[in-house]
Amino acid sequence: MKKLLFTPGPLTTSATVKEAMLEDMGSRDYAFVNAVKEIRSELLRLAHVSQAEGYECVIIQGSGTFGVESVISSVIGKNDTLLVIANGAYGERIVKMANIHQLNHYVLRFDEDQIVNRETTEEFLMSHPDITHVACIHSETTTGLFNPITEIGAICKKNNKVFIVDAMSSFGGVSMNMKKMNIDFLVSSSNKCIEGVPGFSFALCKKAELEKAKGQARSLSLDLYEQWKGLETNGQFRFTPPTLSIMAFRQAITELEKEGGIEARERRYQANKKILDDGMAELGFRQYLDSDIQGHIITSFLYPSDPNFNFELFYQKLNDRGFIIYPGKLSKADAFRIGNIGQIFPDDVKNLVAAIREVLEEENISIGVEQ
Amino acid sequence: MKKLLFTPGPLTTSATVKEAMLEDMGSRDYAFVNAVKEIRSELLRLAHVSQAEGYECVIIQGSGTFGVESVISSVIGKNDTLLVIANGAYGERIVKMANIHQLNHYVLRFDEDQIVNRETTEEFLMSHPDITHVACIHSETTTGLFNPITEIGAICKKNNKVFIVDAMSSFGGVSMNMKKMNIDFLVSSSNKCIEGVPGFSFALCKKAELEKAKGQARSLSLDLYEQWKGLETNGQFRFTPPTLSIMAFRQAITELEKEGGIEARERRYQANKKILDDGMAELGFRQYLDSDIQGHIITSFLYPSDPNFNFELFYQKLNDRGFIIYPGKLSKADAFRIGNIGQIFPDDVKNLVAAIREVLEEENISIGVEQ
Repeated sequence: MKKLLFTPGPLTTSATVKEAMLEDMGSRDYAFVNAVKEIRSELLRLAHVSQAEGYECVIIQGSGTFGVESVISSVIGKNDTLLVIANGAYGERIVKMANIHQLNHYVLRFDEDQIVNRETTEEFLMSHPDITHVACIHSETTTGLFNPITEIGAICKKNNKVFIVDAMSSFGGVSMNMKKMNIDFLVSSSNKCIEGVPGFSFALCKKAELEKAKGQARSLSLDLYEQWKGLETNGQFRFTPPTLSIMAFRQAITELEKEGGIEARERRYQANKKILDDGMAELGFRQYLDSDIQGHIITSFLYPSDPNFNFELFYQKLNDRGFIIYPGKLSKADAFRIGNIGQIFPDDVKNLVAAIREVLEEENISIGVEQ
Repeated sequence: MKKLLFTPGPLTTSATVKEAMLEDMGSRDYAFVNAVKEIRSELLRLAHVSQAEGYECVIIQGSGTFGVESVISSVIGKNDTLLVIANGAYGERIVKMANIHQLNHYVLRFDEDQIVNRETTEEFLMSHPDITHVACIHSETTTGLFNPITEIGAICKKNNKVFIVDAMSSFGGVSMNMKKMNIDFLVSSSNKCIEGVPGFSFALCKKAELEKAKGQARSLSLDLYEQWKGLETNGQFRFTPPTLSIMAFRQAITELEKEGGIEARERRYQANKKILDDGMAELGFRQYLDSDIQGHIITSFLYPSDPNFNFELFYQKLNDRGFIIYPGKLSKADAFRIGNIGQIFPDDVKNLVAAIREVLEEENISIGVEQ
């Protein structure tokens, strides 16, 4: 049975994206090297920048976290100081990296159900002039909120800070102009809104800042500068790349263009989200976040209070019907998550909501207005 | 045109291995978690050990180098001292890791065309009692030599040293009993002799030594202990795994069993190697290594001295005929490499040799006995 993944990625991909993996590829062969070159250039274009404008794309083997750690552990020098703005598990993950690599850093925390506050951020920067770099998550997959990246970017520019954005689950599903948004490093991965399969992450970098990372990395594998130099020198990876994931990704970019680019994809995801919101509200589910800060990538739904609700069973029964949802990750509330991204369309979301209704009835779970 | 890869990996894989990637997989879903569990247990079995005997398998996202760095940067504590035995680029890569992570370490070097000498190694260990760990490459892909791992393992055991083996290009293609060989950590990757596609590496670890790595890692992504704990706790990866590469790998293990296990595969690779040796010798090519230290994984052939020989053209013309060979990596001589591993069979090697003969004739390249 073909299953649909309503997850934040790895997500549902098209058959043709997966079929692009049916041919073996030599990692140092021209055909592959050309594919890598195309992808690096296309990714910059999707962020509305280019090499000519002083931006570079570095592909890093491993998951999205590997890409974020590559940037964090390469870009912050011994005499630099990082401010991590955190309002969820992914922000906290950057804090862990800062600790492990013993970077000079501060953490500015907001509640998990609140977006980053601009005034507080600016005040913090003003009162800590030693800060050189600011890192923030765009779409906090923990909850599904969108942080006000454009506004934080403007504050960074005004205060002359290097701005690092983890746009893991949003890039490709939200229009972003890296230059206009004053983003110096943007990290995302192959298995998110570009709708490829997992295997690597990528960092879009302002070249002038990337060059400063020379000799600063804290590991061999995650050395952002050397990885870039390797790709620039002969188009090859320093270490074995996930060749077939990369071929799938090239196909995924072609299909993104065919759909109408990021703008069209964003509209589809928003349409998915609207159907999900309406359908789940009709069933009585409550969302964890206020709607004005909720993004259109992934939504956290609170567990029903009915003691008949058992998440494992709920998950399994949806799975049996071909729908894979995602567990929660909130620190203070029980919730599950449903993603709108990947090769899922409004009709798929309608079918998911219908399946949820069936399972609720089968399990005799009531979620009335008393929620 | 279907191309055959005569490389050290990514290599030629079966159609069915690649087809195992045609279904999307949720990274936290039961189906995937079960596949990971099976793979971890099978890999231990292939090394003739088990969890019951005190061994553990940790899968690490990224290339083989990521796996080696995960072990090196997690296992060597602040008060430990590593001896890196190096006779090629992969040994030198571990030296780089030791430097970046500022580990206490020594390097014992042998020439690229010589295997590790046992007496010298033992003498070095005796005269440097501060050494706690020894790292060595099994099949040095730089040249294709096999280091005497069994003998070095015995020396490590005798002298009470933890033994780390990079068996990247040999595991699955050479019978190895981890316990008998006194190997505490063995690292290999998905796209080598198990004949999967690239995307991850794995470390087979003696549990008692793995447990000592707690809190010692120098990065978040490559923390071997935490990666293990994550997999043990709920069967899930801490960070997004390359789901489809893992599904392909499970299929690859099934096919390895079907072939008759590692012993049968080793015989096939050896048969490939024999045909390659004979065919290339007949054409007049000389090998870089003496035959008694040459392994059956990959062979370095010296460039012909005829000025008509141009590697790029030679490579391209073989590529046009469907054969992808591999550039050289020697520090002191010009050579190219041909691998015997992956889904290639004696007839494929015969066809490769015939194609090489054609190209030599077409390009009017003579390689006579004066070589």
